[in-house]
Amino acid sequence: MIPTIEWHGPNVRMIDQRKLPARIEWYTCRGYRDVIRGIGDMVIRGAPAIGVAAAMGLALGARSISAGTYAVFSGKFGKIANEMFLARPTAVNLRWAIDRMSGLVASMADSPVEDIKAALFEESEKILIEDIEINRRLGKSGARLVPDGATILTHCNAGSLATGGYGTALGVIRAAHEAGRNIAVIADETRPWLQGLRLTAFELMEDSIPVTVIADNAAGSLMRQKKIDLVITGADRIAANGDVANKIGTYQVAVLARENKIPFYVAAPISTIDGTIKNGDLIPVEQRGPEEISRFGGREMGPSGVSVLNPAFDVTPAKYVSAIITEKGIIKSPYRKAIRGLLDL
Amino acid sequence: MIPTIEWHGPNVRMIDQRKLPARIEWYTCRGYRDVIRGIGDMVIRGAPAIGVAAAMGLALGARSISAGTYAVFSGKFGKIANEMFLARPTAVNLRWAIDRMSGLVASMADSPVEDIKAALFEESEKILIEDIEINRRLGKSGARLVPDGATILTHCNAGSLATGGYGTALGVIRAAHEAGRNIAVIADETRPWLQGLRLTAFELMEDSIPVTVIADNAAGSLMRQKKIDLVITGADRIAANGDVANKIGTYQVAVLARENKIPFYVAAPISTIDGTIKNGDLIPVEQRGPEEISRFGGREMGPSGVSVLNPAFDVTPAKYVSAIITEKGIIKSPYRKAIRGLLDL
Repeated sequence: MIPTIEWHGPNVRMIDQRKLPARIEWYTCRGYRDVIRGIGDMVIRGAPAIGVAAAMGLALGARSISAGTYAVFSGKFGKIANEMFLARPTAVNLRWAIDRMSGLVASMADSPVEDIKAALFEESEKILIEDIEINRRLGKSGARLVPDGATILTHCNAGSLATGGYGTALGVIRAAHEAGRNIAVIADETRPWLQGLRLTAFELMEDSIPVTVIADNAAGSLMRQKKIDLVITGADRIAANGDVANKIGTYQVAVLARENKIPFYVAAPISTIDGTIKNGDLIPVEQRGPEEISRFGGREMGPSGVSVLNPAFDVTPAKYVSAIITEKGIIKSPYRKAIRGLLDL
Repeated sequence: MIPTIEWHGPNVRMIDQRKLPARIEWYTCRGYRDVIRGIGDMVIRGAPAIGVAAAMGLALGARSISAGTYAVFSGKFGKIANEMFLARPTAVNLRWAIDRMSGLVASMADSPVEDIKAALFEESEKILIEDIEINRRLGKSGARLVPDGATILTHCNAGSLATGGYGTALGVIRAAHEAGRNIAVIADETRPWLQGLRLTAFELMEDSIPVTVIADNAAGSLMRQKKIDLVITGADRIAANGDVANKIGTYQVAVLARENKIPFYVAAPISTIDGTIKNGDLIPVEQRGPEEISRFGGREMGPSGVSVLNPAFDVTPAKYVSAIITEKGIIKSPYRKAIRGLLDL
């Protein structure tokens, strides 16, 4: 599996996910603004991957700061962190990574600026490696929810490409596959950006896990025909009450799963849980441009001047979520208490 | 509004809906096989429009028959009718039109062949004109379900282009608009064929009815945010118990509507009701090619060799349907009884 993001000499480089799977192309970031642009334009996407990219971007930004004193450095670093924070609004892992990097800076007020820069670089590498480890633990913990012979529906891409590596929802699927279970995956194509068709199918085919792509419109019908045994998705932010913000369409899948008595699982690292947000309706939902919907392969498909609404995420109330799979185990309703417990661990 | 299909000299011509809205191009049928191909390739689509096209196609086919006797003519006509029947499997209006045209042939066993050919031509024109009248009556009958200020979600295209003219679901919307009600429409883009983006938005913009296109994935979230007041769709076949086969994704919309306490209405002429089929699960659902999902603008978007499942329709159980709007009034649950009553009218 190709890496999602890595240090490459003095630069950060990411696989350009806009081009996949037709072309495997690197997007090279020479400065932190390239990273911000990469996140905003969805060169890299997926909540955990955005967190890793933000950390690397801050390390890159830190290097470019010329400052003789900690005060000057810290002020300039804070400005970069603020810019990074605005790259995309919904995934909380962005804030989580910024907080962690900023915390490191704050803890080194007595160190020479060059040492702080080096520590930030190391921290960004650590966040990447940890993310992969977390996904492996999460995958192992979730795999027991996947019975032998199961057909699993997933929405969007919560795979290796959405994380430092291995994946969250696809991490659980990979772990079940590695445990020798005979499974098959149905991937929603996931309009408008086609993460399911372009990324999830690509990843699973590379791993020889059987995968079939459907239009998002077909998921409910397959559930009604009992052709899906369980659903696993990732998350962009989980509120303190267990409400889940994730790729647009997730809410629909969750409602349809409950209607058809199919378990709906969310797989996410603890860094995706936002204990400061009471419920899902308070999570900011990014609105993206109309051309993601109206243009296909550079060609306008709709009538000229058509009005389009393109929310990138939706909120699934906790009552539809059968369980949340994290690297520290599986939690179930009542979520408020379970999440408090997890965050205190 | 451009006509969906019409006689043009000795030929039948249809607007090529694969090209809309970018190009308004006629597809000319010189023989009945051109009509079959036009239906199969979705040059023309929508259950009532398929019925009209089949009738015209049979009239066209009848003309080409060389037969000295009724027996020879009738035998050859039967063969053409059988071919026509296979053009697409789900919309029952195809069978309805074939039955009507075949009934006419059977009733003229004592007439000269040339008279039968002329009668078939006239019958096909009558079916077209009737279809538009039926839609206007249906629209008027349904408009009272659309309150002033309502935002209406529709799925696929059940408009002028799906019928002889005026439309079923869009007929109701047009009638409400003509009655002076201030309404707005949200159109699901309707993957994979994009009938919502390409056809529904186009039709409504021509009529200056406010319309906004969304990815199919966003419908549920908008319902949960109380941004949709009611849903109206068309139908491809309605079983004797009120189950509705319609464009893939309709079932999901219906479940989400009920979950969010929003009425879900189906608008269809009585020719769409199949009294011979007990329930929706017995309706044949067409599977279409994978390229409708994996290719965009002629370019393969998924990984090479990706497996795709592409059912064109789904079945919405009657329990999710708040009412069925027909040209003979609105029926509600219990549907079996109401449908029996309608068919006996």
